[in-house]
Amino acid sequence: MDKKENRKPVEISELGEFGLIDHLTKDFTVIDKNLIKGIGDDCAVFECGDICNLVTTDLLVEGVHFNLVYTPLKHLGYKAVAVNLSDIYAMNGTPKYITVSVAVSRKFSVTAMEQLYEGIKLACDRFDVELIGGDTTSSMSGLFINITAIGQAKKEDIVYRSGAKKNDLVCVSGDLGGAYIGLKVLEREAKIYMEDKEMQPELEGYEYVIERQLKPEPRRDIVRELAKRGIVPNSMMDISDGLSSELMHICKQSDVGCRVYEEHIPIHEQTESVANRFHMDPSLAAMNGGEDYELLFTVPMDKKELVEEISDVSLIGYICDASEGKKFVPRNGAELDLKAQGWTSF
Amino acid sequence: MDKKENRKPVEISELGEFGLIDHLTKDFTVIDKNLIKGIGDDCAVFECGDICNLVTTDLLVEGVHFNLVYTPLKHLGYKAVAVNLSDIYAMNGTPKYITVSVAVSRKFSVTAMEQLYEGIKLACDRFDVELIGGDTTSSMSGLFINITAIGQAKKEDIVYRSGAKKNDLVCVSGDLGGAYIGLKVLEREAKIYMEDKEMQPELEGYEYVIERQLKPEPRRDIVRELAKRGIVPNSMMDISDGLSSELMHICKQSDVGCRVYEEHIPIHEQTESVANRFHMDPSLAAMNGGEDYELLFTVPMDKKELVEEISDVSLIGYICDASEGKKFVPRNGAELDLKAQGWTSF
Repeated sequence: MDKKENRKPVEISELGEFGLIDHLTKDFTVIDKNLIKGIGDDCAVFECGDICNLVTTDLLVEGVHFNLVYTPLKHLGYKAVAVNLSDIYAMNGTPKYITVSVAVSRKFSVTAMEQLYEGIKLACDRFDVELIGGDTTSSMSGLFINITAIGQAKKEDIVYRSGAKKNDLVCVSGDLGGAYIGLKVLEREAKIYMEDKEMQPELEGYEYVIERQLKPEPRRDIVRELAKRGIVPNSMMDISDGLSSELMHICKQSDVGCRVYEEHIPIHEQTESVANRFHMDPSLAAMNGGEDYELLFTVPMDKKELVEEISDVSLIGYICDASEGKKFVPRNGAELDLKAQGWTSF
Repeated sequence: MDKKENRKPVEISELGEFGLIDHLTKDFTVIDKNLIKGIGDDCAVFECGDICNLVTTDLLVEGVHFNLVYTPLKHLGYKAVAVNLSDIYAMNGTPKYITVSVAVSRKFSVTAMEQLYEGIKLACDRFDVELIGGDTTSSMSGLFINITAIGQAKKEDIVYRSGAKKNDLVCVSGDLGGAYIGLKVLEREAKIYMEDKEMQPELEGYEYVIERQLKPEPRRDIVRELAKRGIVPNSMMDISDGLSSELMHICKQSDVGCRVYEEHIPIHEQTESVANRFHMDPSLAAMNGGEDYELLFTVPMDKKELVEEISDVSLIGYICDASEGKKFVPRNGAELDLKAQGWTSF
């Protein structure tokens, strides 16, 4: 420790979130034989009887992850639960329980907290999840919400990020980039509002992208559609930081490469039109925007027809050998290296 | 929602932490048959095979729960884990896993975070607990740590707050009030330091109470000593908010009353001498100070001799009928109603 004090302190932003987590947790070694997966996937997995428990946790911070100028508290509560459930579904599991910790400054009223919990309850009811505990405390400033979700799955059904195989098809649910474009709309309106509080926000024509930002839906339906067809993906994760970043996680952890094609990336027409109006590239929003909470998964080639039956799934590319690299193929046919330019809080 | 907006907002401090949690969670109904205990005890309990899982979560906020002027980050990391493990032991369980969520402002360096995680690791190693996940993000200001701990116990071994029976003996481990007195010492030194940064803190003669505040130890040893003697307490919880407050929880949830005697409340000699020097009542510190993380439990009268074998346990009173009230009996023999004057963040 003495030596460290003579060094110039390393800024956290130099490491980034994943670098920081890796760095801080590298000395924690796993010895428990019931623990199947600790840090490094959407959820931790530990065994218990004939079923495995899945655990995931997410911390949302005012001013970093959300802006209360344009985020209704009910939506925020819903989203805080949704992003955790999304991690459980991304393991091919069933969410069962959540704990909710909240720190609020004195400026929040009980009514405000009620609205937050209305959203939490709506998500619990919709996804058959029980609130089993939590902690409520004051903060010096701002609102902090930490949710831990616990889910279950049979051991043989759990899908990790590390299982992608050469020649797998790369699939995504829903459409991408909308949440990011919605954020840009909301940020613009918030700026106008802060400059002139008489201004009413103009949100007509932006409903879809705003909904994508404020109220993402965890894709339980996709997990069920896959199960109905007997498909267990080789790898899966949810798209929280952006497609590029998540593809890189899967490729790195599975020791494979990939090709994904711009022309196959699903983008909603409103995402596209609003992006164009804002002079932004819709594909870039899809690749790097994040917060769509769609599922990214890979399945063996022989499942192609079965996967294609699922209406809201797109095949966007394939898995190749690690030596062939991780590439994004734009419409002009060039091959570009994937970069993790996803959202980071640091 | 429209009607609510016409009401004057209720301040959160009017409800207090427990009032707020009750209020916000009253609409969440439990339907899952594996869930044995949701909100309202030290941990949630849910079944899984032949073992039950216990889940607890705690959120520590800079400026509310700790002051970094006098709290070394390593101690803080240790304590953040310890307070969660204490909740697992308070259910008579064995902690197995934790998740750690941290939000930090840009003023923190990687070295600072390393120190925090050194403390987390020390607690994990000491109590055979695995770090299985977490989230790391930035905050606009200050440090926030949310830990969720998961433990296990056989269903028949789990001890709730609600099981206290008339004529039970009321027992506490260790000694009380030290953590609160330690906090007062640290606050005084911090104040002196803030006024004159050349001043070195005078901590000689305060080592014990400061250690009680900065580095509480979850009482695994007591749980083991009880198990060794085949004692399953009728009720148990850990003392985080203060003995008065916790006794009231046990009495309320068990629908019983109690008598606890000032003369039997264990107080360390340093706690007593420092309290006297600060013109504070040591018994008041023990009753209302909180943060001692000792175990409060009740056992049937016929276990008296067995419990007395355990060196670090004091018998401080007994459980009576609810109609006889919840009373504190000072040395002068009067009976005073217990009041929950424990620590609150609001």
